[in-house]
Amino acid sequence: MAAIDLNADLGESFGRWKLGDDREVMRSVTSVNIACGFHAGDPGTMRESLLLAAEAGVAAGAHPGLPDLLGFGRRRMEVAPRDVADYVIYQVGALLATAATLGVTVTHVKPHGALYTMLPEHPEAAEAVARALIALDPALPLVLLDGPAADAAEAVGAVVAREAFVDADYSPDGRLLLHTIATPHPPEEVAARAVSITRGRLITQDGELPVRAHTICLHGDAPGAPEIGRAVRAALEAAGVAVLPLPATLAACAAAGTD
Amino acid sequence: MAAIDLNADLGESFGRWKLGDDREVMRSVTSVNIACGFHAGDPGTMRESLLLAAEAGVAAGAHPGLPDLLGFGRRRMEVAPRDVADYVIYQVGALLATAATLGVTVTHVKPHGALYTMLPEHPEAAEAVARALIALDPALPLVLLDGPAADAAEAVGAVVAREAFVDADYSPDGRLLLHTIATPHPPEEVAARAVSITRGRLITQDGELPVRAHTICLHGDAPGAPEIGRAVRAALEAAGVAVLPLPATLAACAAAGTD
Amino acid sequence: MAAIDLNADLGESFGRWKLGDDREVMRSVTSVNIACGFHAGDPGTMRESLLLAAEAGVAAGAHPGLPDLLGFGRRRMEVAPRDVADYVIYQVGALLATAATLGVTVTHVKPHGALYTMLPEHPEAAEAVARALIALDPALPLVLLDGPAADAAEAVGAVVAREAFVDADYSPDGRLLLHTIATPHPPEEVAARAVSITRGRLITQDGELPVRAHTICLHGDAPGAPEIGRAVRAALEAAGVAVLPLPATLAACAAAGTD
Amino acid sequence: MAAIDLNADLGESFGRWKLGDDREVMRSVTSVNIACGFHAGDPGTMRESLLLAAEAGVAAGAHPGLPDLLGFGRRRMEVAPRDVADYVIYQVGALLATAATLGVTVTHVKPHGALYTMLPEHPEAAEAVARALIALDPALPLVLLDGPAADAAEAVGAVVAREAFVDADYSPDGRLLLHTIATPHPPEEVAARAVSITRGRLITQDGELPVRAHTICLHGDAPGAPEIGRAVRAALEAAGVAVLPLPATLAACAAAGTD
Repeated sequence: MAAIDLNADLGESFGRWKLGDDREVMRSVTSVNIACGFHAGDPGTMRESLLLAAEAGVAAGAHPGLPDLLGFGRRRMEVAPRDVADYVIYQVGALLATAATLGVTVTHVKPHGALYTMLPEHPEAAEAVARALIALDPALPLVLLDGPAADAAEAVGAVVAREAFVDADYSPDGRLLLHTIATPHPPEEVAARAVSITRGRLITQDGELPVRAHTICLHGDAPGAPEIGRAVRAALEAAGVAVLPLPATLAACAAAGTD
Repeated sequence: MAAIDLNADLGESFGRWKLGDDREVMRSVTSVNIACGFHAGDPGTMRESLLLAAEAGVAAGAHPGLPDLLGFGRRRMEVAPRDVADYVIYQVGALLATAATLGVTVTHVKPHGALYTMLPEHPEAAEAVARALIALDPALPLVLLDGPAADAAEAVGAVVAREAFVDADYSPDGRLLLHTIATPHPPEEVAARAVSITRGRLITQDGELPVRAHTICLHGDAPGAPEIGRAVRAALEAAGVAVLPLPATLAACAAAGTD
Repeated sequence: MAAIDLNADLGESFGRWKLGDDREVMRSVTSVNIACGFHAGDPGTMRESLLLAAEAGVAAGAHPGLPDLLGFGRRRMEVAPRDVADYVIYQVGALLATAATLGVTVTHVKPHGALYTMLPEHPEAAEAVARALIALDPALPLVLLDGPAADAAEAVGAVVAREAFVDADYSPDGRLLLHTIATPHPPEEVAARAVSITRGRLITQDGELPVRAHTICLHGDAPGAPEIGRAVRAALEAAGVAVLPLPATLAACAAAGTD
Repeated sequence: MAAIDLNADLGESFGRWKLGDDREVMRSVTSVNIACGFHAGDPGTMRESLLLAAEAGVAAGAHPGLPDLLGFGRRRMEVAPRDVADYVIYQVGALLATAATLGVTVTHVKPHGALYTMLPEHPEAAEAVARALIALDPALPLVLLDGPAADAAEAVGAVVAREAFVDADYSPDGRLLLHTIATPHPPEEVAARAVSITRGRLITQDGELPVRAHTICLHGDAPGAPEIGRAVRAALEAAGVAVLPLPATLAACAAAGTD
């Protein structure tokens, strides 16, 4: 039986500014990625978000970003691989310590925004991040887009959780087109994409490509996000796919030898 | 035999800006406090500072500050105890993770600047920090000025390393007058203060007060800092006091029952 | 005939984070205070806010704050008067230039949050700000709480617009209790306070005190803010008070010799 | 008679961190570019830098950068043209107001670091900046690298001061290689490049290209910067070139019809 994780971003408020409906976001997913202060989030928001995730029973990961609060970490910056790794470790450490004070486990690390989308084009940065994470905790999974970044991180020994997207489109050659999140997508279409991914087929703008994924990202700010979340989860379950938090998904895949 | 630690701040550069002579600072002390990014320091500087400390064989602690880069964390801010504790854990976690990637041990936590000087007047904040650190790691010592902050932290169960100062003056009623660091002090006078502290006597502006200290702070930016460092260390050794890194000092004091 | 201005804060979003309903806020007031980037606001938000204010026909002032984005400028900081003045000029200049590119006039300067509430207790800082503003533009009014800060600024020659509050309470001795904004207040009670202010009487928690005010602050985030705004405006008009933008109010008061 | 300006960066300290020897830097140049708080500089440093420049009799311009303090504004960021223009106006306004309080004139605007080097490749951003500056003050010169950015700004009507470099190399096809500033260059060679520029010839790594320049940049942190400054200035004067502050240079060029 196939297994998959559904993940969403959490804890993207900052100080007095609130963003997103964190409780709603957690209804459909099994894992969340908590902002760590560089692009969003702050020490108090991180603490509250970890508690929310624990209460909801979803797996809680770190969501480190570029040091660009004004741009929400969505603008590419020319950052050296060594600096990228330092920034990730700093933020992950901040969340790990906060989680430790609460008795909550941090289950994974997923780079945010431009940091995430830069890595497939800069596998040397993905490798630097992977090596640093291995030095921190060799068992901590790194969530990366299926493709060159994931390959680079895996090649140096990191535990990699491969990710695919359903509420944004892929170009015919397999590039993720993140700006298409803003385009309304019918829930049933998005749900069909999710099921297809669990069968190893990525639906692109004009066809299909092979894909490997342990987790599927759902954006809380996509148009119709709650309906999409329910539709995706229902379709996966109807297709006999176990929707499990990331650690359980990785374990199930490893046990099934599908990893 | 009495034991004491000598500590100094390290890693107070930020990005392109360099501050202090970190190698010189480490010649006289046995422990250093590494800035963690809120008042000074950045992820790369933290990594380099941890390596420098390990290479020099000094104990490396975290030096969390207020979120005031422009004011170098030296300006008091009206921060709620809960927020103070969150800020400390965030920064300590960032250093812990960076150290873990290098195989370096973080030996203590010492609040910086206004955060440090606020705590004796806000024991409820010292208590909040202590409780959070205990939840993170009950064995991690918290360095605080001997007095109400140290008492409050100890009362809730934290391992506290009590600190005293020699290159700044104390008022007759025992308040630390940090601005007097800028006043040149003769090295032999400062050294005599250090020896006196190990005998439980704090030399103030007009007399003496009782004091308990596991560590003495030396400021790298005090006038004549290198000479002061050498004089203090030589005087302590001449007086038969073991000058040891903080963990060894705490162990020696515990063994001697002087704690 | 008496005249008064009603003012509210505007442009308190930051990057991806939106705060407040700026269009709603402008329905009841005649002047707005636009955040300038230190506690809230950013260059693009400032531009958009100036355009919104111009479109709505309300007077647009600068709302400089302390450099504390995480605390929304609401936490007191120990800042030297010289630094306070530098921060105000920096932020006012940024808004002046942005406004100049749009052909919009900046009509006043009102310090925000902790910067505002600190000034009555630190008249030397109010004086430093006033002197700097006079050097920048001697005709630019400085909005300050009626009392010691306003007196200090006026004493050195600044054009001062005195302010009073109606959706927060005053203690019996006339201290503004800003935290009481969170308490719901009946609109008719708030409106009666406003009318009373225009007659020189400040309603406190247990009586009345004399007051002078050119402008009354309305908080967009007070409970029932839109109803309060409408009630205040209607009551003032019913009482024969002209509700005018700040420059016109100051001119009317000067003409009437009530200033 | 030809005229040229020599410019250098000033005021790149931040809070407690000092950078560069501002008094030394001003010995050789006729104009300075003052950091405005985004990549370096802060409100107090800006005030002090304006006073230093006025005292030294050099022209004082604004040096706005990208919002990247940690990277000193040297890392490219994917910033939209509208945002670039907003950032420039914000920073220029902050300096203009500070200068106004001191009675000092701001003579020009020169983008810093990555913001400067991005513009030739993004003429639409240069155009957005130029349009915003024209709306602010149509007479305020914009300093840009001779080439596509300068052409784009001039095409929309900005007063442009074209710049060339002598302590960094140019590739054979005329691209400025800023990293070569770190390479030691013999002062006489750098001086010869400067004289050549005033004759319209840019010396590249393997030949010459045509160039137009009103100002030549000298980096205070280039190896041997003081010697280079003296050599350049002496060589220009020996060649009969008037070394004048930027406004006088622009006026002389306009009068000579060489503009």
